[in-house]
Amino acid sequence: MIGQDIIDQFRALLDARGIVTGADDIAPWLTDWRGRFHGQAAAILQPDSTEQVAAIVTLAARLGVPLVPQGGNTSMVGGATPPPDGSALILSLRRMNRIRSISASDNLAVCEAGVILSTLHDAAAEIGRRFPLSLGAKGSATIGGLVSTNAGGTQVLRHGTMRALVEGIEAVLPDGGIFEGLDALKKDNRGYDIKQLLIGAEGTLGIITAASLRLVPAIAARAVGWAGVRSPADALALLRHAEARLGDSVEGFEVIADDGLGHVLSHIPGTRCPIETRTPWHVLIEVDHDSGRQPGPGERLESALAEALDQGIALDAAIAVNEAQAEAFWRIRESLSEAERAQGPALQYDISVPVARMPAFMTDTAAAAERAFPGTTASSFGHLGDGNVHFHVRAPKGTADGPAWIAAQGAAINAFVHDAVVAAGGSISAEHGIGQMKRAELGRLASPARLHALRAIKAAFDPQGIMNPDKLIPRPGEG
Amino acid sequence: MIGQDIIDQFRALLDARGIVTGADDIAPWLTDWRGRFHGQAAAILQPDSTEQVAAIVTLAARLGVPLVPQGGNTSMVGGATPPPDGSALILSLRRMNRIRSISASDNLAVCEAGVILSTLHDAAAEIGRRFPLSLGAKGSATIGGLVSTNAGGTQVLRHGTMRALVEGIEAVLPDGGIFEGLDALKKDNRGYDIKQLLIGAEGTLGIITAASLRLVPAIAARAVGWAGVRSPADALALLRHAEARLGDSVEGFEVIADDGLGHVLSHIPGTRCPIETRTPWHVLIEVDHDSGRQPGPGERLESALAEALDQGIALDAAIAVNEAQAEAFWRIRESLSEAERAQGPALQYDISVPVARMPAFMTDTAAAAERAFPGTTASSFGHLGDGNVHFHVRAPKGTADGPAWIAAQGAAINAFVHDAVVAAGGSISAEHGIGQMKRAELGRLASPARLHALRAIKAAFDPQGIMNPDKLIPRPGEG
Repeated sequence: MIGQDIIDQFRALLDARGIVTGADDIAPWLTDWRGRFHGQAAAILQPDSTEQVAAIVTLAARLGVPLVPQGGNTSMVGGATPPPDGSALILSLRRMNRIRSISASDNLAVCEAGVILSTLHDAAAEIGRRFPLSLGAKGSATIGGLVSTNAGGTQVLRHGTMRALVEGIEAVLPDGGIFEGLDALKKDNRGYDIKQLLIGAEGTLGIITAASLRLVPAIAARAVGWAGVRSPADALALLRHAEARLGDSVEGFEVIADDGLGHVLSHIPGTRCPIETRTPWHVLIEVDHDSGRQPGPGERLESALAEALDQGIALDAAIAVNEAQAEAFWRIRESLSEAERAQGPALQYDISVPVARMPAFMTDTAAAAERAFPGTTASSFGHLGDGNVHFHVRAPKGTADGPAWIAAQGAAINAFVHDAVVAAGGSISAEHGIGQMKRAELGRLASPARLHALRAIKAAFDPQGIMNPDKLIPRPGEG
Repeated sequence: MIGQDIIDQFRALLDARGIVTGADDIAPWLTDWRGRFHGQAAAILQPDSTEQVAAIVTLAARLGVPLVPQGGNTSMVGGATPPPDGSALILSLRRMNRIRSISASDNLAVCEAGVILSTLHDAAAEIGRRFPLSLGAKGSATIGGLVSTNAGGTQVLRHGTMRALVEGIEAVLPDGGIFEGLDALKKDNRGYDIKQLLIGAEGTLGIITAASLRLVPAIAARAVGWAGVRSPADALALLRHAEARLGDSVEGFEVIADDGLGHVLSHIPGTRCPIETRTPWHVLIEVDHDSGRQPGPGERLESALAEALDQGIALDAAIAVNEAQAEAFWRIRESLSEAERAQGPALQYDISVPVARMPAFMTDTAAAAERAFPGTTASSFGHLGDGNVHFHVRAPKGTADGPAWIAAQGAAINAFVHDAVVAAGGSISAEHGIGQMKRAELGRLASPARLHALRAIKAAFDPQGIMNPDKLIPRPGEG
């Protein structure tokens, strides 16, 4: 545990609200929100400005004290949880929560790291714009964390991940120097794109203190539809058909296995199947228009789905007749994980493969997993257009002790699924990052060239290893 | 000069066509295409496969022999010219010119580094798709060079620079390891994005051997218009108006000063002003539709321009009535540099500033330059929507000896313009990169944090400094 003398040196850099040392105040931030990772820290540093962050990092570098940056603490991979030996301090960016500027004519918002995602959504809506990235944790997740993890969500098909929305970054590098890159330049070829390196670095190369973010027009009209299809391959054919007919106004395209839908209908009150036929696979599709363009999205989606039915790509289809029904369609998609938890213990994977290979991956890997681990059932859902599968392996029916099942089978099933991902040319982390949870698996599966590059960059930026220690970069023994 | 014994060791790795040592055969590749930079090299290595590139780099690393990668040799900044002391070998990627795969359903082409841009254009057109990046050198420039310099062009407003079109990269890193990153994953959060680091690295971190590139639908219909406006500020207002009315179907938006137009009309035979009024500034605008969507682009552009005239944003406007006229409008834009050369010597800058600051930059910096360097005239044109200005300072009227004027005044004018760019939060290289030409200026003007990061990354990847030596990274004395 870091001693009092060191804490006092950091205290001297900050105002009264700038440091938290009470055990009860620190406790909630020592564990990730799913309760899987636990750490210790003698203090939370809460700077109020970029200059204070720079002063903290400079001192940390001088003393060799590791820092664990934290925003909303919504990591899915233990990325914001400090090490268990208390050797690091938490650096919270939550007080840096100003929207420095927001402009409709420039389609740009400059946000400090601690701005909560839903706050930015509201600010953009007030000026007739939209920040087109959203996810379940939007009421807690902060801009700094979202940029540091290159967050995704349900709108990636049209607008890309966070990487595509970040136009500039301000960050404090591990030597305390401030990287001033907030100017939103659409063309800038002054060498290596440092901004791109910091996006998705999970705080291991420096502390992001602010970002310039791209806004898009507010949605003028939307249409949400549901289609039943025979297979993931037909779902992909439907996506290509929709893209050809509707262009990039296709904003959501989610594929759902019928068993997943069944769990939702069984466990989530008030849900019903949007179409009359129960088909093996389902597709949720959303079409958005930014303008009052005619014909509207409903009419265009209807004619695209009618063609798909005619051509036999879809077996059945429905379009939400009003906003309430549109939300009911989306609620099914958003309840899939909750419904599955009610069904019993499961291992869940956030993985991606090239879009063209996704249909085969979904069916073949599920079947192979069920064969390899008798009694389990495997299925998947997710963002088909992004190649992003949420792949789940459920414990055999009647498994009462989920943790014991995971302890016994987890490592083998993890390895099985991840090996299948690598064989398909995919990624063992589509959206959530590596953090602590997938660090060893990254070490096991990354190519030597990739591992070498990751370690070389880390060593170049952070030779002392004080930036979010033990996250992302595999340890020497790990690959 | 590198000796025969070393040449022979490289020769042993390659087939007969894999190495060129005749002085006459080498000569054309020792000078950049504008004849500004001159180098020496004892051989050109011409591998035919990624494995041969890896073997070459492995040997180069062992022997400490620097390599200068070269594609079409169309660099604007001396980025592909070897050092004058003959201490390096040229590594040409031109024989690696296969399109490994191209797919309309995946909207993806996997191209080797030596594929010429116009070859890819043709291949995409054959399958009803388009690769939406083009530039003057498209008949020579290669994919490897375009990726390595994050090339731009006239379609960036809608489709982004090369960075936005690269979905995967294969490269040989400076230790000879092959980075296999061709799988096009739309979501991949396995740590630092190595691909992003190699894009725009100008061959200083490794040799790009292939890239997976995004295709878009072919253009179904286009409309090209011309508008006369009062000022760059009104040109920006017209852009915002066009974006609001026409969404992202605005593919080109070029702003041109009236004096530049005047030079074209004087020096380029067969050109005429598209509108009747001579206004202080001009805008060329292109609207493209991917589908047969109605109303078509011509009708939509016409109504948007009519509104702009009504609102006083535009002073006059015209729409090309046929494809020949559309090409005549574009010919004016594309002849600006040639016309200016006919007018007399000029210094030309490839710079960018945030879009919102571009109007003030264009007028204020031109006036300030003319005051600071009496007799000169300054003006600009370029891609307004990208914040990319082509800023020119012309020698005083009657200057006969251009090179002498540049020798006397060039350094001072360069510094003046670049200082103004930095003051406006801009970049001294929008499209062309740094190469040899802007290396010292980058050193003078980059912030310490950026310089430190650039040098740290270079040292981490290429500790021996064998990858495109003396390009991009400022020397120790330079900043």
